[in-house]
Amino acid sequence: MARLGEFERIDRYFRPLAAPGALGLGDDAALIDGPTGEQLVLTADAIVAGVHFFSDDPADLVARKLLRVNLSDLAAMGAAPVGYLLTTALPASCDEPWLEAFARGLAADQAEFGIGLLGGDSVASPGPATLSLTALGRVASGRAIRRNGARAGDVVFASGTLGDGALGLKVLKGELPALAPEHCRFLAGRYHLPQPRLALGGRLAGLAHAMIDVSDGLVADLGHICATSGVGARIAAPRLPLSPAAAAAIAAEPRLIAAALGGGDDYELVFTAPGAAAAALSDLAAALALGITAIGEIVPGEGVAVTDRDGQPVAVAAGGYRHF
Amino acid sequence: MARLGEFERIDRYFRPLAAPGALGLGDDAALIDGPTGEQLVLTADAIVAGVHFFSDDPADLVARKLLRVNLSDLAAMGAAPVGYLLTTALPASCDEPWLEAFARGLAADQAEFGIGLLGGDSVASPGPATLSLTALGRVASGRAIRRNGARAGDVVFASGTLGDGALGLKVLKGELPALAPEHCRFLAGRYHLPQPRLALGGRLAGLAHAMIDVSDGLVADLGHICATSGVGARIAAPRLPLSPAAAAAIAAEPRLIAAALGGGDDYELVFTAPGAAAAALSDLAAALALGITAIGEIVPGEGVAVTDRDGQPVAVAAGGYRHF
Repeated sequence: MARLGEFERIDRYFRPLAAPGALGLGDDAALIDGPTGEQLVLTADAIVAGVHFFSDDPADLVARKLLRVNLSDLAAMGAAPVGYLLTTALPASCDEPWLEAFARGLAADQAEFGIGLLGGDSVASPGPATLSLTALGRVASGRAIRRNGARAGDVVFASGTLGDGALGLKVLKGELPALAPEHCRFLAGRYHLPQPRLALGGRLAGLAHAMIDVSDGLVADLGHICATSGVGARIAAPRLPLSPAAAAAIAAEPRLIAAALGGGDDYELVFTAPGAAAAALSDLAAALALGITAIGEIVPGEGVAVTDRDGQPVAVAAGGYRHF
Repeated sequence: MARLGEFERIDRYFRPLAAPGALGLGDDAALIDGPTGEQLVLTADAIVAGVHFFSDDPADLVARKLLRVNLSDLAAMGAAPVGYLLTTALPASCDEPWLEAFARGLAADQAEFGIGLLGGDSVASPGPATLSLTALGRVASGRAIRRNGARAGDVVFASGTLGDGALGLKVLKGELPALAPEHCRFLAGRYHLPQPRLALGGRLAGLAHAMIDVSDGLVADLGHICATSGVGARIAAPRLPLSPAAAAAIAAEPRLIAAALGGGDDYELVFTAPGAAAAALSDLAAALALGITAIGEIVPGEGVAVTDRDGQPVAVAAGGYRHF
């Protein structure tokens, strides 16, 4: 039997096991009762050397990305981070200097995000470095922003810029040799060190109807919002917010717009809100010095449709972003 | 540089990262504030095929053991289980039937322990199956039983029987060919399917001063209690509670007593309590139909000393149990 995709595997084998707080495994994180007036938010991700990161990536960046990817899931629920548990299964090649750098990366991000290590496990493995992190956050009771609240008529917004993560991976694989060095550095940095949008996520309660972070790609992740909300979405490709580096890459090679539509690893927030929220969002964008861009709208129906500058449909590869 | 042991790695690289609730990574689990009157308890363990379990072990038993090992950590804090997050990094050889069996094992234990899956991640890996589980429990505020409360004069107690896990592994490796088949089945079962002592752990608040579960071996794990409590312990080898199967194996080969002293994977509770608690513990043992055996005492000083039937010191390999 052919191996099912990971989404299908989760659907078939793990969703039936979900506890009520798991939200059907259909959200960025689980919600459980916390101290009075709060809910605790739990999420976990695993990464494998050679699959989700390069074996020779600097260990401090591997650590920080693993942590930030999980913090991004907390941000996507509107939660604030509390701490994390970490398990490492490491081959002999992850020696003491590697581990020292790995711990240094964690320490840097603990300071940056005001969190601490709560526990974990450290084991040896004959296989590739395999790292699993469970992040714990908190949110005011009833204020978590789910994926299932999008309504027809909502505007779709994205934070920051899209496509940088996927283009950064192309830079690291040597696939964009003609791009200016400063653009290459920027994009590689966006791939290696995502910025979880915790400040923004925490300010969107009462404004956003539905939210997700872009880990698998805009179309795939917005598709999760549409599927769980029972709606469709229309995205205008020319409105996607691009960094100068991504804009330069796409100007030189227009098909690279696919990185902004279907590429993953951006860890920006995509959310839906009524048009009336636009002024408040504009204020918020200014206060946070973070772009918030209207990129489309929620419509009745299903699925995510993308149009080009002439209003013509743009084909996007199904299934979202696939890792290298 | 030679690779440090996992304990040393945790000491050097991870302990400096510990949050206050992590209890210095020196306990079975972390404690954080929960709903009014409760604390939440968090613990994580990772296992790797070929290191912590056999690649051809039945997948349902792998799943259940992974879950139970974590539940045992909750039991060792006196906590009740709530749910868990699971990440799986699986090679192609873990096919759909494997995964179906794995999920079936989880479902069986979810029903048995009244818990549910809260989240996780499922990724492909070119390496051995690597599974990481974070378990969440709850305990009345201030009632968690730590490792650091042992006092000179306390009696050391153990639940159930010791050595079965390590002897079960020997059975599975074909190293006990002369042992009767029913004993072999019992020991292999104890290795594959530990019984987290949740009912006992939950009833020991107010009785036990310090507690741990036996995962690395009695001497190593009691040594953790001693180190964090600033005391020593004396254990009488003839008082160790043995199953009929373990007793038969040791009668035939006396050196196998090392399995009860230094072998891991028993997941029994070892705790210290004042001698005055003996009557209450006896009642508890009867109520739970679970043996609770006094095996030694806490003394001033440090380290765990073991004596034989003649009161002579027994040498125990340092560092506790090492996996195959």
